[in-house]
Amino acid sequence: MTADRITVAVDAMGGDHAPTQIVAGALAAVAELGVAVRCYGRAEEVVAHVPGGVLPDGFEIVDCREVIAMDDEPASAARRLKDSSVVRAAQAVRDGEADAMISAGNTGAAMAAALLRMGRVPGVARPAIAVPIPVPGSHPQILVDAGATVDAAPEWLVQFAQMGRVYARARFGLDAPTIGLLSNGEEAGKGDTLRKTVFDLLQDEPGFVGNVEGSDFMRPGRADVIVTDGFAGNVALKSIEAALRSLATMVFATLDANDAAREAAQVILPLLLDAAQAYDPDHTGGAVLLGVKGVCVISHGSSNAVAVVSAARVAEACVRADVVTQLRERVGRAG
Amino acid sequence: MTADRITVAVDAMGGDHAPTQIVAGALAAVAELGVAVRCYGRAEEVVAHVPGGVLPDGFEIVDCREVIAMDDEPASAARRLKDSSVVRAAQAVRDGEADAMISAGNTGAAMAAALLRMGRVPGVARPAIAVPIPVPGSHPQILVDAGATVDAAPEWLVQFAQMGRVYARARFGLDAPTIGLLSNGEEAGKGDTLRKTVFDLLQDEPGFVGNVEGSDFMRPGRADVIVTDGFAGNVALKSIEAALRSLATMVFATLDANDAAREAAQVILPLLLDAAQAYDPDHTGGAVLLGVKGVCVISHGSSNAVAVVSAARVAEACVRADVVTQLRERVGRAG
Repeated sequence: MTADRITVAVDAMGGDHAPTQIVAGALAAVAELGVAVRCYGRAEEVVAHVPGGVLPDGFEIVDCREVIAMDDEPASAARRLKDSSVVRAAQAVRDGEADAMISAGNTGAAMAAALLRMGRVPGVARPAIAVPIPVPGSHPQILVDAGATVDAAPEWLVQFAQMGRVYARARFGLDAPTIGLLSNGEEAGKGDTLRKTVFDLLQDEPGFVGNVEGSDFMRPGRADVIVTDGFAGNVALKSIEAALRSLATMVFATLDANDAAREAAQVILPLLLDAAQAYDPDHTGGAVLLGVKGVCVISHGSSNAVAVVSAARVAEACVRADVVTQLRERVGRAG
Repeated sequence: MTADRITVAVDAMGGDHAPTQIVAGALAAVAELGVAVRCYGRAEEVVAHVPGGVLPDGFEIVDCREVIAMDDEPASAARRLKDSSVVRAAQAVRDGEADAMISAGNTGAAMAAALLRMGRVPGVARPAIAVPIPVPGSHPQILVDAGATVDAAPEWLVQFAQMGRVYARARFGLDAPTIGLLSNGEEAGKGDTLRKTVFDLLQDEPGFVGNVEGSDFMRPGRADVIVTDGFAGNVALKSIEAALRSLATMVFATLDANDAAREAAQVILPLLLDAAQAYDPDHTGGAVLLGVKGVCVISHGSSNAVAVVSAARVAEACVRADVVTQLRERVGRAG
């Protein structure tokens, strides 16, 4: 690893389409982004997906024998399976052998591995997952926390806001990101006990615009960063995905409803697929675990090679912007 | 009011398009559903929207002078404005002058009016809002609570499940509705402290299928009733609406992108609008406030006449199935 060429540790065994798509994506990241990749996994399985078995410059395989499955209990698996691909990738970041890690495997295991091996940024009480929510015609909103920390204390949500601001700056180059607190109404005074306390605590935070609602997702200009606890954030994120999937399925079925529709679809479908890229998580890039002492990008379980390249792009942006140092300097101590 | 003709009290002054669309919808409900309607509002404004000023049989205007605005603080407004259209409508149900009430105004005010005037069903600790979530090709899922009770105790969520079951039976004729607990993962053990406690309490409830996720919304066969607290439920509902609106906007823009697209749209658009009815809250009908001693249907703020008719249909179904008596008999005492 050098200052100008960034090295990404890739968990080659994590994800529904691992190792095939993960290795393909890792190779593409080397070719397209110019990053170096260390691929963690069973060497014989990884190399089987390298065309001709010839490793290109900047692509390295690190053999490790264990794999954490999607349905393994994350925390205990990460503690127990020390030679698993995801734990070894996290360890590589801690040991300076890589600048960032990427996993498309068991999200809880990736979090646990990052926490165990990298540890928390001093002063950060709890980590949070930052996920981009697509806003057509604008940069994405950053939802934080999308599932790392349920049962959050008010002070932790203030830190999530601060971390979200650092990340929105690093990722989208926003000078002064706006921050909204996800609530069940936009008026001050809306929300449960947690939200009301956090609302008061956020008054002093630069960029705080007050409460936002679920209806403010995907709407430009409302808030660059949307802060909530990991429970509500996870529910919101998956609800959005469910709605998009349902409506997209309906639209595609309509375009295939009869002969006339299928003919019209020849014009419409290419335009639609083009516009739909704005909604595609494979293109917006993965989630980032904020608050650990290293860059950890968590891509969705069904990641294909394109998603891995996007994740590598996010990892590179975080490393170049030195997000971890920014977090150390800009996140106030909780409590 | 008679046993065979149901009387609905309509808050004519509530909603973004009140009284025009509300009165039009009330008249349509009388004509199409054969219900009787008592329209609460400023008589001169209501009658101005009755064609020719001639009240049809079954349509009555009850003059009341006050109006609660969308941005009034709900609870205090409902207490203070005793002659407001929404409070008078709730009072009519309490006094037996109507079988059900409908409001498209300030949701909090409708809730407060119903609670103040009708009171709670004995044994029910807190009310909950039940909202239908469209599931194309199947009956809707019932999300409960969609925003009535934030800061919920575990026992209250158990009652929400029981109320949801009663309502799913009454509304969709389901013999044995399934119940899912909204969580941040489907495995047992997922969730925050509240969810973990509720999960254990729900083990004895008929139809409990365990945790469901945001990704299970709009998916047939997962759960007929999805139970959560009013904070998370409100976030989920509005997030779904935001995602649907964003994607629908994109699709319509694509159909208008260029001349070829506009020509193809002549075939596609009618099919699409037809299929989109499954997603239209104006057709699925309003939310119902469960746990009060009377039928209270809350329609969305932007309700048009069609939405008012749908709300009246829901009100009628609840009255015919005697949901209030069912709740009294089938909801266990909390705690």
